[in-house]
Amino acid sequence: MLILQEKEEKIMELMEIGRRARDTEPLMRKLPTAKKNSLLLQCAKDLQVHAAEIIAANALDMEQGRQNGMAAGLLDRLLLTEARIDGMAEGLCQLAALDDPIGEVLGMKKRPNGLLIGQKRVPLGVVGIIYEARPNVTADAFGLCFKTGNVVILKGGSDAIHSNEAIVACIRRSLGDAGLPEDAIQLITDTSRETTTAFMKMNEYVDVLIPRGGAGLIRAVVNNSTIPVIETGTGNCHIFVDESADLDMAVNIILNAKTQRVGVCNACESLVVHEKIKDALLPALSAKLREKDVEIRADEKALPLVQDGVPATDEDWGREYLDYIISVKTVSSVDEAIAHINRYNTKHSEAIITSSYENAQRFLDEVDAAAVYVNASTRFTDGFEFGFGAEIGISTQKLHARGPMGLNALTTTKYIIYGNGQIRP
Amino acid sequence: MLILQEKEEKIMELMEIGRRARDTEPLMRKLPTAKKNSLLLQCAKDLQVHAAEIIAANALDMEQGRQNGMAAGLLDRLLLTEARIDGMAEGLCQLAALDDPIGEVLGMKKRPNGLLIGQKRVPLGVVGIIYEARPNVTADAFGLCFKTGNVVILKGGSDAIHSNEAIVACIRRSLGDAGLPEDAIQLITDTSRETTTAFMKMNEYVDVLIPRGGAGLIRAVVNNSTIPVIETGTGNCHIFVDESADLDMAVNIILNAKTQRVGVCNACESLVVHEKIKDALLPALSAKLREKDVEIRADEKALPLVQDGVPATDEDWGREYLDYIISVKTVSSVDEAIAHINRYNTKHSEAIITSSYENAQRFLDEVDAAAVYVNASTRFTDGFEFGFGAEIGISTQKLHARGPMGLNALTTTKYIIYGNGQIRP
Repeated sequence: MLILQEKEEKIMELMEIGRRARDTEPLMRKLPTAKKNSLLLQCAKDLQVHAAEIIAANALDMEQGRQNGMAAGLLDRLLLTEARIDGMAEGLCQLAALDDPIGEVLGMKKRPNGLLIGQKRVPLGVVGIIYEARPNVTADAFGLCFKTGNVVILKGGSDAIHSNEAIVACIRRSLGDAGLPEDAIQLITDTSRETTTAFMKMNEYVDVLIPRGGAGLIRAVVNNSTIPVIETGTGNCHIFVDESADLDMAVNIILNAKTQRVGVCNACESLVVHEKIKDALLPALSAKLREKDVEIRADEKALPLVQDGVPATDEDWGREYLDYIISVKTVSSVDEAIAHINRYNTKHSEAIITSSYENAQRFLDEVDAAAVYVNASTRFTDGFEFGFGAEIGISTQKLHARGPMGLNALTTTKYIIYGNGQIRP
Repeated sequence: MLILQEKEEKIMELMEIGRRARDTEPLMRKLPTAKKNSLLLQCAKDLQVHAAEIIAANALDMEQGRQNGMAAGLLDRLLLTEARIDGMAEGLCQLAALDDPIGEVLGMKKRPNGLLIGQKRVPLGVVGIIYEARPNVTADAFGLCFKTGNVVILKGGSDAIHSNEAIVACIRRSLGDAGLPEDAIQLITDTSRETTTAFMKMNEYVDVLIPRGGAGLIRAVVNNSTIPVIETGTGNCHIFVDESADLDMAVNIILNAKTQRVGVCNACESLVVHEKIKDALLPALSAKLREKDVEIRADEKALPLVQDGVPATDEDWGREYLDYIISVKTVSSVDEAIAHINRYNTKHSEAIITSSYENAQRFLDEVDAAAVYVNASTRFTDGFEFGFGAEIGISTQKLHARGPMGLNALTTTKYIIYGNGQIRP
């Protein structure tokens, strides 16, 4: 009975968070750009001034993590240092320097009846973010939402609860000191399953939910949320080396896309090679990959040409290794390459290396992915590399935003219509 | 045991429909515009040629409907006549005449490293449409999806099953005769709850789900679907008459927005009147509304000024009447008007009648809705009136598409990147 009552209280607290977010939305919607930018800069300073408090709170999470046997990699992501807090502050300063997307009017046109109709870029409203034990996301997500005039409700991992509380407290102080609504950022501190599930169904109070984290977290949000979700995904990225490829360029791009950084979603995981150039390409390429300790899993035709090759199984074609491993598949045509890629890819980033105009255009047209490249590394799929100045993530879904998401992905539009008495006949 | 086996078979059939849709997608993605347009024109002819068959099938549904005691309004929406089939055909011809949005490249820019990056408009892929007993939606939804290179899976109401089967058979014949994939359109004929629920979770095979119908249907899809949904919604549309309004214009617009057609989502349901002009406006306005038999539910301040007025209750502020009824609320400022509207509206269409520059801009900025008007009737919120030439519906959600949705709402983009050997440093 007591437990039931406790659960009800938790849900009521959650609903109160939702109500407060919704109440704050109108204030955020009309916040002038200059006020947003100066708050971001002040927030950056305040995070640095209060670094010691934040690091002390983080020490509690780290201690707990060690006691719970958290893996070294996860502990590293949880750790906050002065340098990392400087990094968070630097991120907020960068956001302050970007153009404010809110208020831009797109495609205003005059209709035959004299109505002027255009689309005005406006905030989404209340954005919910569910993430794992990475406390730097807390400041980052706030900055992106605040710059775009959105109210944010954060639900971080329980492992980072003390760190998140300290960061959110610091940001709310900055907001309050500036005479801005502290509820522009709220943190859900109850980490029970019931509260998380209820959060994903708060359609009345939350306009969009963005999960940031591993595949398991994203799947859980997609399966349970009734609120629209912006989904970021995994990348099984291919590079197809066409028969007409410049082989030096191919080797250069493949080495970059595979080894420049292996644990990221835009790294190359799968190589597709036209059989006519396999003999010219694979021995030299595989030697260079082996120098970087890349394991090469090759199909039957490729295997004899590959240094230290391992036979690929059918399972390899669909794998996102996030490791020093690459699969090699030979094909007899650009059609077969496109069909193979469309079958096994995760709709992230795909590249063709070719000197054929026709094959380049066909690959761009027919490969189904968020980003399709001719003669360049897949590693460029990134908000900063695309020139957005900020990134919320890389969407592999098709609705609303696809590919690297900058500030615009956190906005929507509304039609504004200027008339002078028009009525519908 | 037998029932369990039957259910499993139904689900397997459904998955087979999904697989066939996915297999058809690559063919649709590269279909030339001319082929799409000639198929739409041929389909229009074929529907007219086979009108008798379709009407015969519809007669079975009508008979069943009458036996089941279906309401007269629903029976009328279910009925197909030769004129209505001509209307469906005309709709397909209009789609053939529209520009093909697929293939357009948006915002191509050169990055400092020489990469050319742009966004190419592409089909969504496989679109699922769940609708009620309106067989005209069958041809309409196919046309919209086909023009935009999408494969469509339809799940119509069980009350219209014979009509839908006949229409879909006719369209599939047209596709087959033209050497195009018949599976560009498929109909789910099993109308059990299990199949409908399973359809809403077929993320592997369906990219987007669009419910078309009443609020109950839309809510069910939003609550149960794990596939991204494009949601259309209800309209509690307000007109705010500011103190500086041209009163003749105000009367004219209100009469139009309330009475030109009452059962539609962009009709005016709620009037908000500045108290300084209530005496000048309401007696004349209410007389004209009464001439059209509109019932007027007014708050305390407005009631004495309104002919045959009825006291409004708090419930009236949030109602979408879809009937000859309007509510009247008096306010003492534009702030109060905006706050009232943002509290009770359904984020559809809102208008201000004013001659104040400042209040017009504030209303456009601060009212949260898909379409916000100055000095014009809310009835213009419509894909045809906005100049899109076609309409899938009016979105009241904020992701992907907001407001009237034309063909572009059935597309997504992919980044295409032209390089000449770029690698990430």
